[in-house]
Amino acid sequence: MKATMLYGAGDVRFEDVAKPTIQKPTDAIIRLAASCVCGSDLWPYRGAQPVDGPQAMGHEYCGVVEAVGDAVTSVKPGQFVVGSFVLSDNSCPHCKYGFQSSCEQREFMTGAQAPLARVPLADGTLVALDQHPDEDLIPSFLAVSDVYGTGYFACDAAGVKPGMTVAVVGDGAVGLMAVLSAKQMGADRIIAMSRHKSRQDLALEFGATDIVAERGEDGIAKIRELTGGVGADAVMECVGMEESMKQAIYGARPGGSIGYVGVPHGVTFDGQELFFAQRQMLGGPAPVRRFLPDLIDSVLKREINPGKVFDLEIPLADVAEGYKAMDERRAIKTLLRV
Amino acid sequence: MKATMLYGAGDVRFEDVAKPTIQKPTDAIIRLAASCVCGSDLWPYRGAQPVDGPQAMGHEYCGVVEAVGDAVTSVKPGQFVVGSFVLSDNSCPHCKYGFQSSCEQREFMTGAQAPLARVPLADGTLVALDQHPDEDLIPSFLAVSDVYGTGYFACDAAGVKPGMTVAVVGDGAVGLMAVLSAKQMGADRIIAMSRHKSRQDLALEFGATDIVAERGEDGIAKIRELTGGVGADAVMECVGMEESMKQAIYGARPGGSIGYVGVPHGVTFDGQELFFAQRQMLGGPAPVRRFLPDLIDSVLKREINPGKVFDLEIPLADVAEGYKAMDERRAIKTLLRV
Repeated sequence: MKATMLYGAGDVRFEDVAKPTIQKPTDAIIRLAASCVCGSDLWPYRGAQPVDGPQAMGHEYCGVVEAVGDAVTSVKPGQFVVGSFVLSDNSCPHCKYGFQSSCEQREFMTGAQAPLARVPLADGTLVALDQHPDEDLIPSFLAVSDVYGTGYFACDAAGVKPGMTVAVVGDGAVGLMAVLSAKQMGADRIIAMSRHKSRQDLALEFGATDIVAERGEDGIAKIRELTGGVGADAVMECVGMEESMKQAIYGARPGGSIGYVGVPHGVTFDGQELFFAQRQMLGGPAPVRRFLPDLIDSVLKREINPGKVFDLEIPLADVAEGYKAMDERRAIKTLLRV
Repeated sequence: MKATMLYGAGDVRFEDVAKPTIQKPTDAIIRLAASCVCGSDLWPYRGAQPVDGPQAMGHEYCGVVEAVGDAVTSVKPGQFVVGSFVLSDNSCPHCKYGFQSSCEQREFMTGAQAPLARVPLADGTLVALDQHPDEDLIPSFLAVSDVYGTGYFACDAAGVKPGMTVAVVGDGAVGLMAVLSAKQMGADRIIAMSRHKSRQDLALEFGATDIVAERGEDGIAKIRELTGGVGADAVMECVGMEESMKQAIYGARPGGSIGYVGVPHGVTFDGQELFFAQRQMLGGPAPVRRFLPDLIDSVLKREINPGKVFDLEIPLADVAEGYKAMDERRAIKTLLRV
C-alpha cells in the first residue's frame, strides 16, 4: 500500500510501504475512514523538530477494525472504532486517574496517514460504536481522536465551568476546538484571539462571543478591557510559543487557570514570576481516551460538529499538498480522503 | 518605642523608632500580643535578597486594636484581631474570588517585630474576635496570620481532599504547617520529607504518616516506592529552590497537583518538561484572609494547635538571637514576647 512518510523538513512523500500487520497480541489493524494532518505534524515539517530518517506520519484516526491480536477482547473485526492519538492500556493507575496520556505503557500513534494502520494497545485505546455511523459524521469522529479531544482537554485542564469568562489563545485548529469545547462546557463569555477573518468567523460559529485581534501586550490589555480590568477565569493556550504563553498567563486573572495544550517550543517560566502571577497551570498531551465515550456520544447526537474544523478536503495521495496548505496557512486543517 | 530593623545581611538591630501613627483613614494601630520571625525574613538576612537601607521587619501579627482611622468600620479599639501578612481591601474582584494576596490594593505588612504596628487597609485585612482569647492560644493566632495560613494555602492550591495521599517538601515551619493542614483537610497518607529528628517528630505529631529523609532523585524514588510506583496525589512545596521544586513535581503523579508557597529563588521551569510531566501547579503568596475566619474558629475550638511550631520563645528585645537561631537551624520558628 501507499502511505505518508516524512523524510525531512518540507519533504513529505506518499510512497509504497509494507502493509501493517499484527505485531503483538494487543494490536489491532484498522482501515481508516479518513485521515488528516495535525498542527503538530508541522513542527518536524518546518524543521523545528529533528527528523531521524523517514518517519511514518499520522496519528488521528477512526475506521473499521480489520484484524485483532489474540489478546484483544473489547473490539472485533468489522466494528467502527475511534481511538486516541495516545495509545494507553487504560488500566494502569495513571489511566484510572484519567491521565491516559501518561499511561505507564504510553506510546504515540503513528502511520495513520495511510489506508491501513496498526493500533497498539487496542483494548485500552479504541472505543467501538454500536453501529457504523452516518458518513457525514466521519470528520467529527476523526476530530475527536485528537484535535477536538485536545481542545476539550485544554478546557478541562483550565477547569472551565458554566458561566465562566474564558479566553482562547491561538486560532489554529486546536484553538478553534477549544472555543467549541468551552461552549459545550457552558462558558458564558468566550474570547477568541485571532487575526484571520476566516478563523474569526469559524470561532464565532463555534461559540466565541468576542474576538481579539491584538497580540502580545496589546492582546493582554484587550482581554483586561473586555473583562472589566480583571482577566479571564480560564485561558486555553493552544500554540506553545513564549509570546502565546505570556498572553495566556496574563490574560487570566490571579487565581485563574491556564490549560496549555500547544507543545511548548522554546518556552521557559521564571519561578518567581509565576509565583507572584498566581495562576493555576495544567497542560500536556491530552488524555483523549478519558473523554472519548462522552464526545462520541455528543457527535452521534449531533450536539457538536467538530468536523467543521476541516476546511480542506483532498485525496490521501495528495497529502504533501495538505501539509503545504496548512504550513502556508491556506488551510486550518486538511482532511485526507482514503 | 524600640523595634526591629534590618540594616543588611546578618545585621538585625532592635532600636528606637517613632511610634506608628494613623497615616490614612483606612489604617489601624495594633498592640501586638506576640510577634515572630518568618522563614522569609531569612532571605534578606542571609543576603539572598537585597536590603535597601534599614528595613522595618515583621509581618506576622495578632493583638489588640489601639486606634483606627476615620474610615475604619469593622474593627474598633479594644478588640483582639488577627490579620494576614498580605494587606488587602477584601472587596476588589480578586479578593472576591478569594485571592486577596493579589488584591488590587495589595501591600505587604511590615514593622510587626515591634510592640505596636500600623495595619493599612484595616477593614479588609483584620478579623476581630468576639472576645479576647485565652493566653495559651496566642501562638496559634500568630501562626494563623502567615505560617499556618501559608501551609494551609499550599494544601488548598494543591487541592488536598479527604482520602488523598500527599507529600510535603520542606521541613521548615511552613512545611510542618502544611502537614498539619493536610491532616486538617483529611488527607489519608501524609509523607513528610525531613532529615532532622526534631522536625520529623513534630511532623509525626502534626499528622505525618511517613517520613522520607532522602533528597533529590533518591527522595523522588522513595515517594514513588511508598506510593506503589505512582506518586502522590498532591505535593506541597515549601522551600522555593530548584531541587525542592523538582522533588515536588516528580513526587506527584501525572495529573497530580503541586501547591508551591516557598518563594522561588533561582527556579526556572522548562515549558516542554512541565508539559510532558503533566502536573497541575498553583502557587503564590497565600491569600490568608480567605481562610482566616475558619482557621480562627478552629483555633478557638482547639481543633488545631499550629502554635506548636514555635520551638524557641525569647523576649522581643533579643530578636537578633531569634534570627540567628533560625538561620543556624537551631530553631524551627522563633516567637518573640512583646
